Amino acid sequence: MKIKRYNKKNDISYSFGAYTVMSLIEKKEDSVVKVLFKEEGLKSTEVLKVLNIVKEKDIPFEINDRLIEKISYKENTYVVGVLKKYSCNLEKDEKHIVLINPTNPGNIGNIMRSMVAFNVKNLAIVKPAIDIFYPKVIRSSMGAFFNVNWKYFENFETYVREFPNNNVFTFTKDGKQSLDGFSKNFSKERNISLVFGNESRGIGENIKKFGKSVFIPQSKDIESLNLSVSVGITLYSLKNENVDKIMDK
Amino acid sequence: MKIKRYNKKNDISYSFGAYTVMSLIEKKEDSVVKVLFKEEGLKSTEVLKVLNIVKEKDIPFEINDRLIEKISYKENTYVVGVLKKYSCNLEKDEKHIVLINPTNPGNIGNIMRSMVAFNVKNLAIVKPAIDIFYPKVIRSSMGAFFNVNWKYFENFETYVREFPNNNVFTFTKDGKQSLDGFSKNFSKERNISLVFGNESRGIGENIKKFGKSVFIPQSKDIESLNLSVSVGITLYSLKNENVDKIMDK
Repeated sequence: MKIKRYNKKNDISYSFGAYTVMSLIEKKEDSVVKVLFKEEGLKSTEVLKVLNIVKEKDIPFEINDRLIEKISYKENTYVVGVLKKYSCNLEKDEKHIVLINPTNPGNIGNIMRSMVAFNVKNLAIVKPAIDIFYPKVIRSSMGAFFNVNWKYFENFETYVREFPNNNVFTFTKDGKQSLDGFSKNFSKERNISLVFGNESRGIGENIKKFGKSVFIPQSKDIESLNLSVSVGITLYSLKNENVDKIMDK
Repeated sequence: MKIKRYNKKNDISYSFGAYTVMSLIEKKEDSVVKVLFKEEGLKSTEVLKVLNIVKEKDIPFEINDRLIEKISYKENTYVVGVLKKYSCNLEKDEKHIVLINPTNPGNIGNIMRSMVAFNVKNLAIVKPAIDIFYPKVIRSSMGAFFNVNWKYFENFETYVREFPNNNVFTFTKDGKQSLDGFSKNFSKERNISLVFGNESRGIGENIKKFGKSVFIPQSKDIESLNLSVSVGITLYSLKNENVDKIMDK
């Protein structure tokens, strides 16, 4: 397998940066193909920590500045995890985040960070949508990527058929109930699907008909909140009141 | 004044897209130099709406596809507002968001959207920091940019001296009080400054000493939430309980 700049059609992807590579090894060791280092990076304690773990676990590695420069998007990338793409299943009877046609890699990464932060670990993505293995998604997730289950669905109907026990709630500016009220009633419920629309188009009528609608109280002076901010606020609002429990997870 | 690709040193910047140009005209009409249109865009109702407002208000305009292609970052940009850079002052005795050394344009734009959404309209930025007139900031704010007061400060001390009546609260993972408790006590207070650190380094000890610290309850499995998500959650949590009042602002 040749390592070259990321391409959707290839079987491998990359996780850039020490923190993200550590999460990769910790959560998806079976998917690690190799770890690449830059000579210069070996001065940093963080990067050396990765090298030690890699040696200890007998993971193939290579010190290769030119290769890293070829595949990375930013300067100062000192360590890269090469990984085989894998697939996941979503857990039944758990809270799900459902994104309809998301397109922005930074948003997906931010959403995964928030999901892990508030312990909601199942993400459904309705096509057409961004390629989740695009390295910018993994990078902006800061490693949360490897701690979330995700699955693509051809359309929303397919998702609903696979998880018939989940109550569907669509998030839209003209929703019927406010997030505050919704959270009070549902923070302890597990079987709920929180559905968010595309970054510019929001949620269509064809999706709304599947569930109840919720709005995040906000000023009329803006068109909308950013998608990842909306999801973050919703997850925070729904978090169990028992702070210690969340902090210890 | 020649219109060319954005440069920090020039006196002008650009707002891309119909919604953002409308906000520019509505909130900062005095700063509008000219509005540019692409021939093709004039088929869209949204763009035509901008053209009508521009004509009605006697704002200079030009239909110039090549110029738009030269200065824009994305294809499908049909309308561009050219604006003179301006400066703002922050209101005293109001809630402030304070960002220490922010670097990511998308984060600033998202934060401005959340600020307008939750009616907190004063933003202090401590240098070194991103150039706020960088077009990606304006674009990702979806027009909220023109509805927020912002001001740069050489360092945090200068900020504190200018607003001695504001109570400082720093947001950090090892904060003393939780956001939930903080919000219950302070949602009705006006004179508070909510301070958030740089995207990768967080808040330093030199800043912490100026105020009390707050944490957003979250799992230990992540390094941190995204900066714009943290600010969004904080503003949502602090919003006045009277939803209707916020919705009508």
